[in-house]
Amino acid sequence: MIDERIYLDNASSTRLDERVMEAIKPYLYEKYAVATSDFGHTMGVDAKEGLESARETIASKLGADVSEIVFTSGNAESSNLALKGVMGAVENKGHLIISAIEDFPVLHTAKKLEKQGHELTILSVDKDGFISLSDLKDEIKENTALVSIQHGNQEIGTLQNIPEIGKLCADEGVLFHTDATHTFTRVPIDVKYVDLITISAHTIHGPKGIGALYVSDGVKLEKQMEGGFQEKGRRGGLENIPGAVGFARAVELVDEEENERLKEMRDHLIERIQEEIPDTTLNGSREKRIPQNANITFHYVEGESITLHMDMRGVAVSTGSACFSASLEASHVILGIGGDHERAHGSVRFSLGRFNTMEEMDHTVEHMKEIVGRLREISPLGKEVKK
Amino acid sequence: MIDERIYLDNASSTRLDERVMEAIKPYLYEKYAVATSDFGHTMGVDAKEGLESARETIASKLGADVSEIVFTSGNAESSNLALKGVMGAVENKGHLIISAIEDFPVLHTAKKLEKQGHELTILSVDKDGFISLSDLKDEIKENTALVSIQHGNQEIGTLQNIPEIGKLCADEGVLFHTDATHTFTRVPIDVKYVDLITISAHTIHGPKGIGALYVSDGVKLEKQMEGGFQEKGRRGGLENIPGAVGFARAVELVDEEENERLKEMRDHLIERIQEEIPDTTLNGSREKRIPQNANITFHYVEGESITLHMDMRGVAVSTGSACFSASLEASHVILGIGGDHERAHGSVRFSLGRFNTMEEMDHTVEHMKEIVGRLREISPLGKEVKK
Repeated sequence: MIDERIYLDNASSTRLDERVMEAIKPYLYEKYAVATSDFGHTMGVDAKEGLESARETIASKLGADVSEIVFTSGNAESSNLALKGVMGAVENKGHLIISAIEDFPVLHTAKKLEKQGHELTILSVDKDGFISLSDLKDEIKENTALVSIQHGNQEIGTLQNIPEIGKLCADEGVLFHTDATHTFTRVPIDVKYVDLITISAHTIHGPKGIGALYVSDGVKLEKQMEGGFQEKGRRGGLENIPGAVGFARAVELVDEEENERLKEMRDHLIERIQEEIPDTTLNGSREKRIPQNANITFHYVEGESITLHMDMRGVAVSTGSACFSASLEASHVILGIGGDHERAHGSVRFSLGRFNTMEEMDHTVEHMKEIVGRLREISPLGKEVKK
Repeated sequence: MIDERIYLDNASSTRLDERVMEAIKPYLYEKYAVATSDFGHTMGVDAKEGLESARETIASKLGADVSEIVFTSGNAESSNLALKGVMGAVENKGHLIISAIEDFPVLHTAKKLEKQGHELTILSVDKDGFISLSDLKDEIKENTALVSIQHGNQEIGTLQNIPEIGKLCADEGVLFHTDATHTFTRVPIDVKYVDLITISAHTIHGPKGIGALYVSDGVKLEKQMEGGFQEKGRRGGLENIPGAVGFARAVELVDEEENERLKEMRDHLIERIQEEIPDTTLNGSREKRIPQNANITFHYVEGESITLHMDMRGVAVSTGSACFSASLEASHVILGIGGDHERAHGSVRFSLGRFNTMEEMDHTVEHMKEIVGRLREISPLGKEVKK
């Protein structure tokens, strides 16, 4: 038995790194004032310096200018601001293109915009989750204002070809937004190919409740949160300075060595499962994949049964199965890559983070072998197959 | 000389109470998962319990049902959601009434809605900042959908008569929202008179980046943040569970004794200033005033000069003067109560919090006496007056 829990749901939320908290603390207990103008009091000026220094760190990681970073309350708000902001700045209504496997903030914002009278095209993806560049080119038309295609997928980890999509959008004179919630600091992105980028702290051991939107200089964006004059008029409301400082520290703490380590653990997990457990399908691309994600369908078993049994053994994983989700619908991502409901229901996402170890990968495989084996024995689906 | 800084800008932002951090910590380092459904893993269920328990605490403080609390990223988002949410749920366009001295999230959201085709009426206020009930009654018409009048003012602390306004709105069949950012836990509010209430943690020594909107059962609200299925479909995006837990703990830590202590310090400060410094005007009502606010105009001096000199002596206060603000405009609140630019420019807000002491009030008065006296000696305005 393992004493410690094994947490493999880092795509949903990560444990805060204690070094992030050390960076935040001065902004909770000493420099806790609101960011003031230079005519404000010292504490307000100190707070502002903290905020701007955090902005600098994040801009620098992206290779962006400090003026191009807008802090938000997280990736959902960033994607809302990107899509509603760009489409809201279009005269009359415009046309928007997204992929079928976008995460909910993009998918549901796009559908909301469609209800409000904008045109929406949802691009289908291939069996690994890639959009087709020629499909995208075909769909771009006179009134297309924005293309929003994610960088790395939240469930199956597939990495889209950002430079190619970006070049096409630039050639066609269309703005390009990418949701980089699951790739920022893990997979490099070149801002020269992208006009807007959603990023968040919660996936990289930073605080919850803070994210940012990269907005390339010159992009017209309609403000979505009215308030004061914060964020150069692009997002009102009190600045979450401890959050921003924590986000910046979280960004600093990710390095290439860590990303390599994540890849090794991921590969080890995938390889052992594929070798030692029969009837599995890897969901998403084997090669073009975020370092911290493995998503595998275990045929003839229900994802909820797996997560439940894994949970009883102290391992937290997630599934694309319907009952696991708040929507009670099977994963639109697995269905989007041509999987059927059976494949979605049997899918398990293992999402890795800083605090995982190679030993945990081995324990996870051992547990999975036992659980999947046992479930298949008692499953009517399993039995049927074994006839 | 005082060694310690005196922080009297608690209306802008407060120091985190360390007991709040103690409550938050388990949700950073142990129960850091995303809130899952009951079919999720134990860590997700633990996280969800933390979130729902926080919601319960806040609902209970308001006398509301737990289902009536929607967590947001702060008071700005809450007010945006209230106004845009209600007006967005109106068929075609509607009419909205606010007061002239609302804080920016309400004021600027209302103006945005007006730009989008809704009708907006801005009620003027009297010399103490009160709206007139008969004016309000006169302005309500067939298509009026919402009245948004704050509970306590952010600058001058005036408390509106919520039961009377609420009764009038109910009689007229109009929804009533109040911004209680500066009154929640400090001044009781009866939810039976109000349909929507904006509240925030940042004014009561809770975390930044978390707030809530009370939405009375049955009020139709258009979602403003698209994302997942969080907050019963009223607000998408990852729940900020550490924030919510911290907000709830901050609410628990305020008691009537503290509010009485704030009132005593406030009254002492106002009385000593009025007795010992000539040519001052108290802004806002003397009686119907939030416990933690004093706002006084020191005639013939500039607010920036006062804040600068106070800052050099380690005291943080704010001013309604133009250059202090990010907008570079004089306070719309002081102008709204019939003050002129001179009165706004000479206004100083002292906003109190848990960590202030009576001794600090005395030190503040001593500093103010010296600074105002000295500034009046060298001020051309001061000289003119003394001729």
